[in-house]
Amino acid sequence: MSKKSAEISLAGMKISKDTETPLYRQLYDQFREMILDKRLRPGDRLPSTRSLSTETGISRTMITLSFEQLILEGYLVGKPGSGTFVAGTVPDHLTLAGKSATTRAKTKRRHFDLAKDVLPKEIISRNSNKEEIVPFQIGTPSLDLFPYRIWQQTGGQVLKKFKSFNLGYDDALGYWPLRQEIAGYLRQARAVKCETEQVIVVTGSQQGLNLIAECLLKKGDAVWMEDPGYHGAKFSFLNRGVKICPVPVEDDGLNISHAIKHCRGAKLAYVTPSHQFPLGVTLSLAKRLQLLDWAKRKNMWILEDDYDSEFRYEGRPLASLQGLDTEGCVIYSGTFSKVMYPGLRLAYLVLPSLEMVEEFKKVKAMMDRQSPILDQIILSRFMSEGHFLRHLRKMRLLYDERQQTFINAAKELVGNYLMIKPNAAGMNLTGWISKKIDLQKLKTEIKKQGLAIPFIRDYAMEFFNPRGMMFGYTAFTKYKIRTGLEKLRSCFEKSLL
Amino acid sequence: MSKKSAEISLAGMKISKDTETPLYRQLYDQFREMILDKRLRPGDRLPSTRSLSTETGISRTMITLSFEQLILEGYLVGKPGSGTFVAGTVPDHLTLAGKSATTRAKTKRRHFDLAKDVLPKEIISRNSNKEEIVPFQIGTPSLDLFPYRIWQQTGGQVLKKFKSFNLGYDDALGYWPLRQEIAGYLRQARAVKCETEQVIVVTGSQQGLNLIAECLLKKGDAVWMEDPGYHGAKFSFLNRGVKICPVPVEDDGLNISHAIKHCRGAKLAYVTPSHQFPLGVTLSLAKRLQLLDWAKRKNMWILEDDYDSEFRYEGRPLASLQGLDTEGCVIYSGTFSKVMYPGLRLAYLVLPSLEMVEEFKKVKAMMDRQSPILDQIILSRFMSEGHFLRHLRKMRLLYDERQQTFINAAKELVGNYLMIKPNAAGMNLTGWISKKIDLQKLKTEIKKQGLAIPFIRDYAMEFFNPRGMMFGYTAFTKYKIRTGLEKLRSCFEKSLL
Repeated sequence: MSKKSAEISLAGMKISKDTETPLYRQLYDQFREMILDKRLRPGDRLPSTRSLSTETGISRTMITLSFEQLILEGYLVGKPGSGTFVAGTVPDHLTLAGKSATTRAKTKRRHFDLAKDVLPKEIISRNSNKEEIVPFQIGTPSLDLFPYRIWQQTGGQVLKKFKSFNLGYDDALGYWPLRQEIAGYLRQARAVKCETEQVIVVTGSQQGLNLIAECLLKKGDAVWMEDPGYHGAKFSFLNRGVKICPVPVEDDGLNISHAIKHCRGAKLAYVTPSHQFPLGVTLSLAKRLQLLDWAKRKNMWILEDDYDSEFRYEGRPLASLQGLDTEGCVIYSGTFSKVMYPGLRLAYLVLPSLEMVEEFKKVKAMMDRQSPILDQIILSRFMSEGHFLRHLRKMRLLYDERQQTFINAAKELVGNYLMIKPNAAGMNLTGWISKKIDLQKLKTEIKKQGLAIPFIRDYAMEFFNPRGMMFGYTAFTKYKIRTGLEKLRSCFEKSLL
Repeated sequence: MSKKSAEISLAGMKISKDTETPLYRQLYDQFREMILDKRLRPGDRLPSTRSLSTETGISRTMITLSFEQLILEGYLVGKPGSGTFVAGTVPDHLTLAGKSATTRAKTKRRHFDLAKDVLPKEIISRNSNKEEIVPFQIGTPSLDLFPYRIWQQTGGQVLKKFKSFNLGYDDALGYWPLRQEIAGYLRQARAVKCETEQVIVVTGSQQGLNLIAECLLKKGDAVWMEDPGYHGAKFSFLNRGVKICPVPVEDDGLNISHAIKHCRGAKLAYVTPSHQFPLGVTLSLAKRLQLLDWAKRKNMWILEDDYDSEFRYEGRPLASLQGLDTEGCVIYSGTFSKVMYPGLRLAYLVLPSLEMVEEFKKVKAMMDRQSPILDQIILSRFMSEGHFLRHLRKMRLLYDERQQTFINAAKELVGNYLMIKPNAAGMNLTGWISKKIDLQKLKTEIKKQGLAIPFIRDYAMEFFNPRGMMFGYTAFTKYKIRTGLEKLRSCFEKSLL
């Protein structure tokens, strides 16, 4: 630090009083850059704040501030009585010679390989963008009829008393009053046997799936999956390194005998018994009992994903599979995304034992500590005040009506090309395409028209059924349904063989 | 179904008009139970709704409702013209003979093994319960001085216009205006070089750590970790099957030469350069450059966890390590838990390239699709209207004052047993315990007194420093600080050797 103590020149400093950057910050940036660029070397003495102030017209306070910061960060050292020097601790070979540290707009792009190899990329990437709700997007609630005013009032009441809630770290299992509401709702509406203690709140059903995969499955374990089936679940399992055993789906649900024959040692069965995704069939009572019996004898877990069974248009919602389980082998999963709005990201699991709850709690805490508190409080009030069930009833009537509208319009407009049957539940319909149609051509035309109509085969693993299509109808008015189907008709017409 | 078609008796049915359970539901439950219990057998004919109504006094509508549901679920079949029968499809050996399906309060507890083996259980479980804020809990903001009124107003405005936001699936990277605010704040306050596109919103910093572990690390990769260091990070790495290389921490931060000597092939270095957790030291400029140089030459990633550096009491906050990076090897991580409130669960990562952003996006979508939207909108407004910086300044002054209060009170009350120095940043202080004290005894006494004072060694891996303690002071008033320290004094007095 002593080899060269002459004061350095300020040539090349660009200080502007017109920019939004404070003066001390400009000084700091420029000195820092000069040090990193080697224009200032270890041991160089800086001018006194007084002379710098005279030279630049900047106040001594500003200059002192910038020096103090540079000293704090190790660029400069102050020696009482003799001045301020460039620090000697910046190793020569390490400085960023020849590079401008602050004016560099972009850093280099180092090559980067995702550390994963099991991800079916086409499936994930499809889901990670902002989604425009175009006909006939599946699984989308009618957001125009969400009870905004009540949600606003409920939210307002919660925010008014926000101080009285625990805003620190809460139980990783979720906000207790919300867990109570969920348990009460499930017992009453879904015939789920559960106590509040068995309910875990998760940040969306996808997190619930990951939690189950993390806690119950090891790499190499086998899992029965409905084929075609829900890609989000497949993805969580694949990500865990699990072996998927595709099981064909029949009119009365999963072909359990096929599964037993081909994959006896499965650790878990993933099922959507109330309303199979994507085909919309119901798992029959006989098969439910067969599945439970197998699970009991083979120590297999059953994951019942009850993603949209709140919407049942004939009779009451079907009782859950979980309600039939006497052996504690069913994990029940449900979500608020379909009933409330997807951006809420609140879902839940019901676990069969408190022992399991304790272990899941630790892993949930590792995932995101707990789900955010504000939405949980608002939702629990929305439920306890009866708004949730009212909203559900209203949507059930609306969706029933929209399904009728869709089916009638489809018969009229595309009946020649598409066979479509009513479905007693859920938010989607399955349509079967006439053999007169070139499927590849159709797919291209649908894309060109800006429609969102997935093919059943997009969800297939081994058992392809090429001629099925899926339609969401819940988010669309009569007008949108008709114009969407008119577009689809022109797609069909252009795809005739 | 034909072998025995006599009408069954209703003996044993318990229907009550006083409970909250609707009558049709009671009927449904009882019939279902009788079928599952084999009191009703396949082929049994049920009484007509008319005779049932006469016999029980329940309306025919209710009875019909319950029959319809049982038919839907496969328990009964309706034969036009001849009546309603117990279905023959319920296989004999599968029914739950001898068990009461609806009155069973609890299902069996099947034995359950968590599929994990790498989890350091003592670390996770400590974190997953609701936390009471007792002296001297670390890392806890002063929630009593949170700007509740402004948060309420901002939230109210957002809820009033809630319909105008995208409540469906949004970009998995987060709400764009929030990402803009974060990028602006980081550029200005933390000297982070970033564009909005580089910012990912995550559901708390723990999720950010998992995301990094999932995307950048493979099983068996090595990671440098500060020792003692942040257990949440260690946990995410262990969960990924990564090998942790503990690196001792000195007065000027991580001993990089030690790390290079003992673990040359590390894939990532986890560092807290602004304010090391838990020791509170700052990584010197020379070491920052040494670390960046090594990362550049060895293609190592650096994860800069800037968890509480907003709170700097001398000069301005230190510039980030990321701002010195010219090679795109630093991933920057920050959180709102410490500045706002922990239950908010919003944090962020800044990634060095858009290529990496695209890959992270897919994995974030797999984790929880996206972070919840309401909090993101409120926070973005809170920031854009200047409330965030104002709150930060207010808290900085408050915490500075509280640190003084703590240090003065500590000197007065426990100065004989504890050496404590001011810290220019952060939310915690480190104290060193006198050799006169029996540490095991002290630990027991602290627990007995209900104080929350972790020992530095709780965060150590290989390099134990048994006599350090950590104190959070930010959440406590002068009164609480004094009474807490008085309790601690009595702990010391009882632990004298």
